[in-house]
Amino acid sequence: MNVKHLLISMAPPLAVLGSPARGEDVDQRHIQIAEIEVDPAQLDSYKAAVTEQIDAAIRLEPDVLVLYSVSGKDNPARVTVFEIYRNRDAYLAHLQAPHFLKYKASVEKMVKSLKLIPVDPVKLGAKSG
Amino acid sequence: MNVKHLLISMAPPLAVLGSPARGEDVDQRHIQIAEIEVDPAQLDSYKAAVTEQIDAAIRLEPDVLVLYSVSGKDNPARVTVFEIYRNRDAYLAHLQAPHFLKYKASVEKMVKSLKLIPVDPVKLGAKSG
Repeated sequence: MNVKHLLISMAPPLAVLGSPARGEDVDQRHIQIAEIEVDPAQLDSYKAAVTEQIDAAIRLEPDVLVLYSVSGKDNPARVTVFEIYRNRDAYLAHLQAPHFLKYKASVEKMVKSLKLIPVDPVKLGAKSG
Repeated sequence: MNVKHLLISMAPPLAVLGSPARGEDVDQRHIQIAEIEVDPAQLDSYKAAVTEQIDAAIRLEPDVLVLYSVSGKDNPARVTVFEIYRNRDAYLAHLQAPHFLKYKASVEKMVKSLKLIPVDPVKLGAKSG
């Protein structure tokens, strides 16, 4: 182990999100924002389904880094998900994961519209602990 | 230290974002999405200013948990910031922090519009390390 590797291994856990780690380039991150309009009558069911899907993805997929799902205070049926994957391959693999396919099938009739906004990082700042 | 405290102290670092920690309720989190239209001619200057502000807030403010700033791939001058504060007081304190006041003053003529969308968490999923 050389000095560079030693320093990288001492980085705080969340450095993986905001700065290069293990020789990776943060520019490789696949980041997108999903804007979802849910049928208000089915909002509770939708929230349960997306929660189950996020729990599984974070637990089972090592390269799914962040899935923050939120609901508008003024318009609860407007759900936004802020998504960070280690790279594009991790995102493509996520789309084929059993928990994601189950989620897509179960919410098909709950979602009125879905807009995916691909984005580039400007600065990803987060507490490391 | 009782068993409950011991278990909480063993939680992974990022559990603070997605689940109750130290007896807190995640419902206390102040979460919002800022949608910012930047003058395209000043985009590089804006990015430098917001990066400096985020670096300072994460380093100096213990209750600023997440500031993820991203730029649209299809419209780079459309910047979105996903923001998580420990609670509303932490957000109000952030608005008065010297680095935030400096940022607001420096970008005043770079920002064409700003929309703040207050949101509630549905599920905040993130890797703990």
